[in-house]
Amino acid sequence: MSRDRSTRRRRRDAGAILQTGWREIENPLPPIEVLHPEQVEAIHNASLRVLEEIGMDFLHPEALRLLKEAGADVEPGSERVRFDRGLIMESMAKAPSSFTLHARNPAHNLKMGGNRINFATVGSAPNVSDMDGGRRVGNYEDYCNLLRLAQSLNIVHLVGGYPVEPVDLPPETRHLDAVLACITETDKFYFSYALGAERILDGIEMTRIARGLTEEQMTGEPSLWTVVNTSSPLRLDGPMIAGLMEMATRNQAVCITPFTLSGAMAPASLAGALTQQNAEALAGLAFTQIVNPGAPVIYGGFTSNVDMKSGAPAFGTPEYTRAALAGGQLARRYGVPYRSSNANASNTVDAQAAYESEMSVWGAVMGHANMVLHGAGWLEGGLCASFEKMVLDAEILQGMAEFLMPIKVDDAEIGVDAMAEVGPGGHFFGAAHTLERYENAFYAPILSDWRNYESWEEAGSVDATHRANKIYKQILAEYQPPPLDPAVREELEDYVARRKQEGGVQAA
Amino acid sequence: MSRDRSTRRRRRDAGAILQTGWREIENPLPPIEVLHPEQVEAIHNASLRVLEEIGMDFLHPEALRLLKEAGADVEPGSERVRFDRGLIMESMAKAPSSFTLHARNPAHNLKMGGNRINFATVGSAPNVSDMDGGRRVGNYEDYCNLLRLAQSLNIVHLVGGYPVEPVDLPPETRHLDAVLACITETDKFYFSYALGAERILDGIEMTRIARGLTEEQMTGEPSLWTVVNTSSPLRLDGPMIAGLMEMATRNQAVCITPFTLSGAMAPASLAGALTQQNAEALAGLAFTQIVNPGAPVIYGGFTSNVDMKSGAPAFGTPEYTRAALAGGQLARRYGVPYRSSNANASNTVDAQAAYESEMSVWGAVMGHANMVLHGAGWLEGGLCASFEKMVLDAEILQGMAEFLMPIKVDDAEIGVDAMAEVGPGGHFFGAAHTLERYENAFYAPILSDWRNYESWEEAGSVDATHRANKIYKQILAEYQPPPLDPAVREELEDYVARRKQEGGVQAA
Repeated sequence: MSRDRSTRRRRRDAGAILQTGWREIENPLPPIEVLHPEQVEAIHNASLRVLEEIGMDFLHPEALRLLKEAGADVEPGSERVRFDRGLIMESMAKAPSSFTLHARNPAHNLKMGGNRINFATVGSAPNVSDMDGGRRVGNYEDYCNLLRLAQSLNIVHLVGGYPVEPVDLPPETRHLDAVLACITETDKFYFSYALGAERILDGIEMTRIARGLTEEQMTGEPSLWTVVNTSSPLRLDGPMIAGLMEMATRNQAVCITPFTLSGAMAPASLAGALTQQNAEALAGLAFTQIVNPGAPVIYGGFTSNVDMKSGAPAFGTPEYTRAALAGGQLARRYGVPYRSSNANASNTVDAQAAYESEMSVWGAVMGHANMVLHGAGWLEGGLCASFEKMVLDAEILQGMAEFLMPIKVDDAEIGVDAMAEVGPGGHFFGAAHTLERYENAFYAPILSDWRNYESWEEAGSVDATHRANKIYKQILAEYQPPPLDPAVREELEDYVARRKQEGGVQAA
Repeated sequence: MSRDRSTRRRRRDAGAILQTGWREIENPLPPIEVLHPEQVEAIHNASLRVLEEIGMDFLHPEALRLLKEAGADVEPGSERVRFDRGLIMESMAKAPSSFTLHARNPAHNLKMGGNRINFATVGSAPNVSDMDGGRRVGNYEDYCNLLRLAQSLNIVHLVGGYPVEPVDLPPETRHLDAVLACITETDKFYFSYALGAERILDGIEMTRIARGLTEEQMTGEPSLWTVVNTSSPLRLDGPMIAGLMEMATRNQAVCITPFTLSGAMAPASLAGALTQQNAEALAGLAFTQIVNPGAPVIYGGFTSNVDMKSGAPAFGTPEYTRAALAGGQLARRYGVPYRSSNANASNTVDAQAAYESEMSVWGAVMGHANMVLHGAGWLEGGLCASFEKMVLDAEILQGMAEFLMPIKVDDAEIGVDAMAEVGPGGHFFGAAHTLERYENAFYAPILSDWRNYESWEEAGSVDATHRANKIYKQILAEYQPPPLDPAVREELEDYVARRKQEGGVQAA
């Protein structure tokens, strides 16, 4: 049972790191709602007005044809598409409210929807860092090591994009090696980039092979996901659209995430940025339903703001947190799963990284995000994947998961008899009530050090970031790849070899 | 208007630090409730059973006399007091649901109750630290500097006890110098220790002088507060009771806070620790109402847990956060203001200090705590006051205050016209809608650094803790004591001189 105490079992044998078991996380608490219902409607109506009056650019001829056919108003000789609100809402009504995402290991399948929360790794960072090697450009070795961490950390439910871009691999075939590593180094659910049709088709085919499915079975079981970012304001680029269409056609999961940075790509007001986010998300989501009615989709919210003095993007700010919560209200307005993030803008794994991440995670969790992208490892506003940050985030996410555990209240738990036994002025260390609960009474951290100052100082005054460094290296040292049928591995390797021989993907 | 944008005005002239203005903070969001209503009732009933069947020790003869007179069952020849639930509930019904705490500067008066949140400094730390001087035993110089920081940081509403114990002052007269410094270095609301009757009476008299009130006026305007900690389990010590009685008699504010550390001084279960917390709080609160019906009181929640492996206390844990939220539910059950804390167990100002504090602050704020003690500066589970932590906490608290600002949603804020002006693929930097909002669109941080990696590295790769160090020193350099009538100062100094001549307080 996922909500059972047994999920809290810990490994400490053989020096293994201490962590909670794999668990399916439900948020039993009502979401925090920062918008009044009439404000949700005002944003809803304004965003429909944006799509009716201003419209959105779809930079893909086939998409324009499909949209026109579906009844959208495509401006002749242009890529501008205006949507009647009826078309948007009819299309949205076809989107499923929940679905299952299938991992190579069925124990790692994910429910998307309702109150379920899934934490993903960082995705798409161009740089990578740890305390030993410093900051460096993304590369395949670090890429694989980040996947191994993701596989080993039970609180990480899925791979949320390439944790870091393996820039040392040639762009034409990079996606082949990258997807192969997702399959061999992890058995969790993973991601393919919507950078044109070909890359997505390779990702889908490799996933089909990995799971040993027919194409028909694969269509019945979403086994791959992608994020389609709008090019805010109000534009969807061609390669993204191409990837979206291939994914939606084959019933694979598409998350539409507008990148509405308030003050830069969106109005310098929360209400404005949320309206634009909603307009762009609705246009993208409606389009997937036009491509394939009923295809699994996720509403992505990523509204934050820039520092108006410098133009620098900020994350985990008060505005960000409110936008994350408001985004959940909007996604629920349309009955589709919601994606948020664990974001921060710090340049190093310090207190700022921690407090900004906490603000983001509270927004995601209490906004009832079903998917928390960049859950573990995100630094520098997404420009760097950090090994130490991944461990820090594991602690933050484990803590939130534990926080969501319902409090058990019954006579045995209350323990009036124990209080009578101990009596005024006594202590509970040796009480029977305590001894019964000794093992699993409380959350055991992966990173926090609760020793007193003297013991901590004697042990070298090691701060949280340096401890995270040690922990990530221990996890990698203990890593074991998940089992993979050698025949399947061979078939995958053959596929990759053949596609490389063909030259991979020509041009972006 | 406190909720107005104008409160967000920032000072950057003359190199002053950037912070939000003084503001009265209301939480417009419903509290997070981790207990079902029937669970609240189960804990309520169990705690009344504890007081009926087990009872609580009151180590003070006069208290025992008063309690017996009020109808409590005082065990002959002992300090054990058992309470009929009718007596508890009748007494609780006399406690006010809200009241005003009067500061020397009326602009710093505090409302206690409803959805109002007040952030206090760290209190009672025996040690103090900063990066320059390291960790040292509490002393008067650091004590005064922490008060000056508290006065300068607008997000700090009040002084929550001696920020650090000035151990270099003699115990007999320490409280005289300590209270005098609260009056001269700040004009905010402050605290006196309930360590016997004499110290409290000195605190009350000095506060009366500082505010220029008659004794009668002082009784009408609570101008001082104290925290009475139970000596858990189920005991109230003599000096605390003596202080409580003097405070309550003169209508000054008393916060009863059980120190129910689950697994040590309380059962090793959340429900058990909360039940014991509630029993002890109810006994103390009812006692204040027996001493003086209608006296201002605050329900204090401080339930956390120990690490069951080492016995070390933990704070800002998932259990702590749930207990903070549950404590708010219990306080509201009795219609009295609620106190929680910003706690953490880190030994240094690192990522752990930040994420544990965030967990505590979310628990306090979403638990609708009216008073957040240890709001700024608390480290090492309360064993150390940190200058850098006070700046870090100011950022965390400012962020929460800003998070609670309602989102404005109207046509102007939504800005569909701005989206039309900018159009697909454009940007909002120069838009009229942006320029109108340029100055105050978003929260400006006190500590966060949002520059890109290259700029940050070029500026010396300074992490948040080192930045906090610089900021606190800048604040102290710019500190100006608040105005104080020279005649009042003289009267206070005379009072202190006379009391010192008398020898101060003999024995604890």
